[in-house]
Amino acid sequence: MKWSKMVCVVMVFVSCTVAIHAEEKSAYTWRLATTWGSTLKPFIDTPRKLSALVDAMSNGRFKIEVVASNKHKKPFGIFDMVKSGEYEMGHSASYYWSKKDNAFNPLTTMPFGMTAPEQYGWFYEGGGMALMQKLYKKYGLLSFPGGNTGNQMGGWFKKEIDSVEDLKGLKMRIPGFAGQVMSKLGVKVTNLPPPKLSKALSDGTLDALEWVGPGMDIGFGFHKIAPYYYSGWHEPATELQYLVNMEKFKTLPKDLKEILVSAMKLTAYDMYIQIYDMHARAWRKMRKEYPNIVIKTFPISVMDALRKAKKQLLIKQMANNPMLREIIESQNAYMKQSREWTKMSDFLYLIESL
Amino acid sequence: MKWSKMVCVVMVFVSCTVAIHAEEKSAYTWRLATTWGSTLKPFIDTPRKLSALVDAMSNGRFKIEVVASNKHKKPFGIFDMVKSGEYEMGHSASYYWSKKDNAFNPLTTMPFGMTAPEQYGWFYEGGGMALMQKLYKKYGLLSFPGGNTGNQMGGWFKKEIDSVEDLKGLKMRIPGFAGQVMSKLGVKVTNLPPPKLSKALSDGTLDALEWVGPGMDIGFGFHKIAPYYYSGWHEPATELQYLVNMEKFKTLPKDLKEILVSAMKLTAYDMYIQIYDMHARAWRKMRKEYPNIVIKTFPISVMDALRKAKKQLLIKQMANNPMLREIIESQNAYMKQSREWTKMSDFLYLIESL
Repeated sequence: MKWSKMVCVVMVFVSCTVAIHAEEKSAYTWRLATTWGSTLKPFIDTPRKLSALVDAMSNGRFKIEVVASNKHKKPFGIFDMVKSGEYEMGHSASYYWSKKDNAFNPLTTMPFGMTAPEQYGWFYEGGGMALMQKLYKKYGLLSFPGGNTGNQMGGWFKKEIDSVEDLKGLKMRIPGFAGQVMSKLGVKVTNLPPPKLSKALSDGTLDALEWVGPGMDIGFGFHKIAPYYYSGWHEPATELQYLVNMEKFKTLPKDLKEILVSAMKLTAYDMYIQIYDMHARAWRKMRKEYPNIVIKTFPISVMDALRKAKKQLLIKQMANNPMLREIIESQNAYMKQSREWTKMSDFLYLIESL
Repeated sequence: MKWSKMVCVVMVFVSCTVAIHAEEKSAYTWRLATTWGSTLKPFIDTPRKLSALVDAMSNGRFKIEVVASNKHKKPFGIFDMVKSGEYEMGHSASYYWSKKDNAFNPLTTMPFGMTAPEQYGWFYEGGGMALMQKLYKKYGLLSFPGGNTGNQMGGWFKKEIDSVEDLKGLKMRIPGFAGQVMSKLGVKVTNLPPPKLSKALSDGTLDALEWVGPGMDIGFGFHKIAPYYYSGWHEPATELQYLVNMEKFKTLPKDLKEILVSAMKLTAYDMYIQIYDMHARAWRKMRKEYPNIVIKTFPISVMDALRKAKKQLLIKQMANNPMLREIIESQNAYMKQSREWTKMSDFLYLIESL
């Protein structure tokens, strides 16, 4: 080999190495912290699917490691950990940050609020996304829908509720804003961590509790203890949440931004379908094994009292928080419009197919 | 510059050029033909969003040109054009191919069938995708959900329908399997192209017609001619369809396959939300401008007769088509399970919020 040829081969080798390094430098490795433990299906599946999808669509250039709360030990620290940049992303629910700002509440769900398709309509076609980003921007965060549980059941009760009187003194696990509403009606609202719920319901520490719906309730065995399963009013379409650190997001090239945003949106929709299926399967199993479970709806007097208490609480909170007012007014106007369609489409269809 | 150095510069230049050419060679340009014309919102928006999304996520490596039917002139030729490879993809609806094989019908919707979330549950969690691919594989095609219209309205009628007798001799535009069902009840089923519908309803060529729902009906002005708007029974969750030529799909690298499949799934879900919003907005406008529109449901006697006619027709068709039987049996079992959940969740919630 001539000297000149050899130099050239070396140069080509160098240029190739540079190219490979540039490729490696353009790889991104992120970490995503979840509120959920590593076994809480289907919530934990959603960020895992996101991670797999982003990896596959980016041809391995973008890796997202999902870190569950049993590892990081801070289930309700997601907001702060993503804000600080300790984690680039989180998967949680907006209403967990309501103590920082109660305008976060309606970004998850509201008692007597929108159903899942109505709420996705509000987010994507009715100005909801802009309001959510406006609120989170103050904290250096981006927030995206992260999966919907569908209509949550009103809870498992050991005794039937026939009047508002029956709620007075009732010991119930029901967290958040709905818990505040129940509280106004005299319910002794008790929050307990999930592993303690079944025993508490058994030994009388609790008279009633709500969790999610059949697909997630079945593993706890509540139906073996409290046979009255009330239909929902308080969380008609609970939307989970992806959180992204805004500065970290800016470092992504345009195509990876598109891949990430699309994968978040897709896995959120997918969770709604996954849990719809889980609820249906679990309910069939429960009903078969425990035919004594009774599906109940609260009487009109109780529903009216709950609606009134919700309104009173909200009016008070909105007076102190213009952003909360802006979100609630936007949602109420949107719901009024979309509910008319829901009633004349799916609702009439279901009535006729009973 | 020394000679040896110059050679090296040339070599580096050559190696860069080779790299750029390799990049160009890995670009894919596809064409997608639609059943819809270039202005039919929201149907035409869906493949356009797909095209934009695939372009952005692939960083320009994968381009899909959307060709509307006013250009290619074969709105119902999509199946054959994608099968032959003339177009790599199509956007249409499976039930348009029912004359080739009536097993295609239930992949779109069925009278008295599943609602949109139930049907997505069947596709993605209940074995529906596998059955759809099994059927299309015979034709060298891949098929994916392409967007849901939600519950379609039963149609605009000039006179009220109080009994099965009132349907006899009624001239109605209602295509496909639902038209066959109506036919059995004595309806004179007439198919007319969309631009002729309004005039036909006006001049008595038609007594009634169905199209989609408020968001797509409003532009035709049917509500100014026929004031009775009946709730739906025949297309509870019409799913559009992406068609992909199987051999062309195989030529894509793994990451572009993932991008394409994700973008199809995402834009399909998105259409369901987009049209939900369109229906709600349009209904509000219609109702305000034409307060004489009356929402009606068919009487129980009519619904029972429709249900019976559907069953009789389907039994006959299934006897001649094992694949149709397999799909219908899978759907019926899935619907039975998921409908119980629908009734105790969204349905009870909506009853209580009336």
